Amino acid sequence: MPSELRFLILVEGQFGPLTSKTANSCIRYTPDRVVAVLDSRRAGKTAQDILGFGGAIPVVATLEEGLRPSPPPTALLIGVAPQGGRLPKEWRATILGAIDEGLDVWSGLHTFLTHDAEFVDHATRRGVTLHDLRLPPNDLPVSSGRVRSVDATVVLTVGTDCNIGKMTAALQVRDGLRRQGRAVRFAGTGQTGILIEGWGIAVDAVIADFIGGAAEHLVLEAAKGADIVLVEGQGSLLHPGYSGVTLGLLHGALPHALVLCAQPSREHITNNPWIKIPPLSDVITLHDILTRPLRHAPVIAVCLNTYDLGERAARDAVARAHDDTGLPATDPVRFDPAPIVDAIDTFHRARNTTPHAALA
Amino acid sequence: MPSELRFLILVEGQFGPLTSKTANSCIRYTPDRVVAVLDSRRAGKTAQDILGFGGAIPVVATLEEGLRPSPPPTALLIGVAPQGGRLPKEWRATILGAIDEGLDVWSGLHTFLTHDAEFVDHATRRGVTLHDLRLPPNDLPVSSGRVRSVDATVVLTVGTDCNIGKMTAALQVRDGLRRQGRAVRFAGTGQTGILIEGWGIAVDAVIADFIGGAAEHLVLEAAKGADIVLVEGQGSLLHPGYSGVTLGLLHGALPHALVLCAQPSREHITNNPWIKIPPLSDVITLHDILTRPLRHAPVIAVCLNTYDLGERAARDAVARAHDDTGLPATDPVRFDPAPIVDAIDTFHRARNTTPHAALA
Repeated sequence: MPSELRFLILVEGQFGPLTSKTANSCIRYTPDRVVAVLDSRRAGKTAQDILGFGGAIPVVATLEEGLRPSPPPTALLIGVAPQGGRLPKEWRATILGAIDEGLDVWSGLHTFLTHDAEFVDHATRRGVTLHDLRLPPNDLPVSSGRVRSVDATVVLTVGTDCNIGKMTAALQVRDGLRRQGRAVRFAGTGQTGILIEGWGIAVDAVIADFIGGAAEHLVLEAAKGADIVLVEGQGSLLHPGYSGVTLGLLHGALPHALVLCAQPSREHITNNPWIKIPPLSDVITLHDILTRPLRHAPVIAVCLNTYDLGERAARDAVARAHDDTGLPATDPVRFDPAPIVDAIDTFHRARNTTPHAALA
Repeated sequence: MPSELRFLILVEGQFGPLTSKTANSCIRYTPDRVVAVLDSRRAGKTAQDILGFGGAIPVVATLEEGLRPSPPPTALLIGVAPQGGRLPKEWRATILGAIDEGLDVWSGLHTFLTHDAEFVDHATRRGVTLHDLRLPPNDLPVSSGRVRSVDATVVLTVGTDCNIGKMTAALQVRDGLRRQGRAVRFAGTGQTGILIEGWGIAVDAVIADFIGGAAEHLVLEAAKGADIVLVEGQGSLLHPGYSGVTLGLLHGALPHALVLCAQPSREHITNNPWIKIPPLSDVITLHDILTRPLRHAPVIAVCLNTYDLGERAARDAVARAHDDTGLPATDPVRFDPAPIVDAIDTFHRARNTTPHAALA
C-alpha cells in the first residue's frame, strides 16, 4: 500500500454510524489517511460529530471542496458497502471527476471499476490506478482442510448478524495480544479489512465453490510466522443472504476458537425483520454443531456492540452476556478489550501446553 | 433447448459410476440425446457395461469415431464436473477439433468456454454455439426471504456428502408425483440438472454473496403454476469445500421440507477422509437447527444410494435408515420411489388442509 495514501472518502447521502461501514473503519483505524469525507447532506460537520470518533476530519459538499485541503487527497475511496455491493448510479460522475483530477480510486464494491470500460478509459488517459479491493485471485482451490497443518492458533470472529462488529472486534484485540508478546496476524476477509491491513481476500466476492478455498488460502498465508491469526468473520449463520459465505469461511478457515459478536439492542436480522435473533446460548450451540464434525471450535468470548446504549445499559448488557454464556464478555470498543484478549491468550497457551493428542 | 440435440459426450479417462456425473445423468435421464461416449480407455464397451444403464450407447476412442454414427452428434458435451470445475488441459485439442467439425459445445465447468478467446474464435469462424451451463445471470439479488410468499410446496434434497444422489432423488420422485396429479417443477441448481431440465442456475458458480439470491430467484420462477417445486440440492453442510453453497441454497430457497440423501457404504466426506459422516439422526438435527430460526424445514424422507451393495445389503440398509430415523426410506433408483413420493405428497396435502396459522 503506498505510503502517500490520502483518501477523500465518497459516502454521498450515507455518512452515518451504520450506513458507511468502509468509511467508518478507515477513519477509526487509519485516520491519518483520511483528508475529508464527501457527503453534501452532512457538509460542514466533522467525522467526530457524525460518528463520535475521527476528530476534526471535515465533511465536504463537493469533489472540488474535497481537493482543497493541504496536503490534498491522492485517492478517492468509495466509503460504502451496500447490500449487493453495486455502485450507486449517481456516483459515476463524481468518480469520473476524481479520476480526471488525478486521483486513484479504491473501491470495495462487487461492481469492479477495473471491469468498467468508461472508468478504465479515463484512468488510463489520466495515468491513475483503480483498486478493486474485492477482486479475488483467479486460481483458488476447493478447500480440503489443509489449514489443519497450521501451528498458529486461529481465531475467527462470528456474529449473530451481519454488520455487527466482527472486523472491529478482531482489530480491537490485536494490539492487546501484541502487547502480551504474541506475533499476531489479522486476516482480512472483506473490503474494509483488506483496505486497513493492505492484504486479504474478500470471501464474499469469490465464486461460491471457492469460499472455503479462499479462507484456507488466507489462513495458510497469515499463519506464516504468526502465533495467533485473527480471521475477520463475515455475515452470520442466521442471515438468509450471507449465511453461505459465513459457513464457507468457517469450514475453510477451520478456526481453533470463535469470538461471538452481538448487539444487545438488535432483535432481528438486518433487512429481515421476519428473523428473530435467538439467545446467545442458542447461537453458540449452532456454531458448536457446525464445527464439531470437522474441527470443533468453541466460542471462547463474547464481544458486544453497545454504541447505541447508555453507559449503564451497556454495562448491564455486558454482565448479562457473561451470565447467559459463562464466557468473558465486553464491548471492546467502548470498554477495555482485556477480557477478550485474555480469553484468546489463555486459549492459545492451553493449546501449546496440552499434549496434541488431547486436542484432536 | 434445440430438439435436434444429439451429444457426443467427452469423458476421456474418466467414464465410470462415480467419475463422470454429468455424462451419467445425461445418459440416465435423456438417453435419446446421447450418440456416443468418448473415452479411449473404455472404447469398445457400452454405457450399460460401464454404468449398469444406458443400453447400447457405444464408448468410442476418438473424436473421428464419435462423429461416425448415423444420425451424427450435433454437439460435444463435457461429461465431467471435477472438483474445482476446471478444464483438463489435454481436452483442449479435442474440443477445438469438435468445434472445427461443426459441433456445438456444452459445458458445465467453472472455466467458461465463452470466456476463452481461442474457443470463441474457432466457434465464431465455424458458426457453432458454445453453451456454458454454469454461467450465472448478472443481476442476482441478495436473498431476503421473498420465497415465503410462494404457495407451492418447496422440497429441497440435501445430503450427508456431495455427489451422493441429490439430483437423482429429485428426478426419480418427479414422475411419481406427476402421476398423483401434482404439477411438479424441478429446479436445477447444478450443471447437470440444468442440462437435463433445460433451465436453472448453477448456484455454486455465482458470486458468493448471491448464492441465496440465486436460490430465491429459482424458487420464485419454478413456483409459477406449480403445486410442488423439487429443488436440486448441492454439496453438504458437512463438506469443507461446499458447505457454504449448501447453506446459501438452504437459506435462499427456504424449503418447506427436506429429503435427506445418503450412501450407506460411505463413511467419510469425499476427498476429505478426516471427516467422518455422522449418523443420519445427527445430520437431521443439523438441518433442523439451521432451518428453525428462518423457516423450519423438517426432513420428511431418506433416499439411499445403494448402487455398490448387493440386493440383501441394500434392503437391510433401507430398513436400518427407516429404523434409525423413523422416516420413510428407500433407494429411489434401485427400488420403487413410492415411499418418497408418498411422503412428499402427504406433506403437501397436510400443508394445504392445515390452517396457515398452524404452519407459521
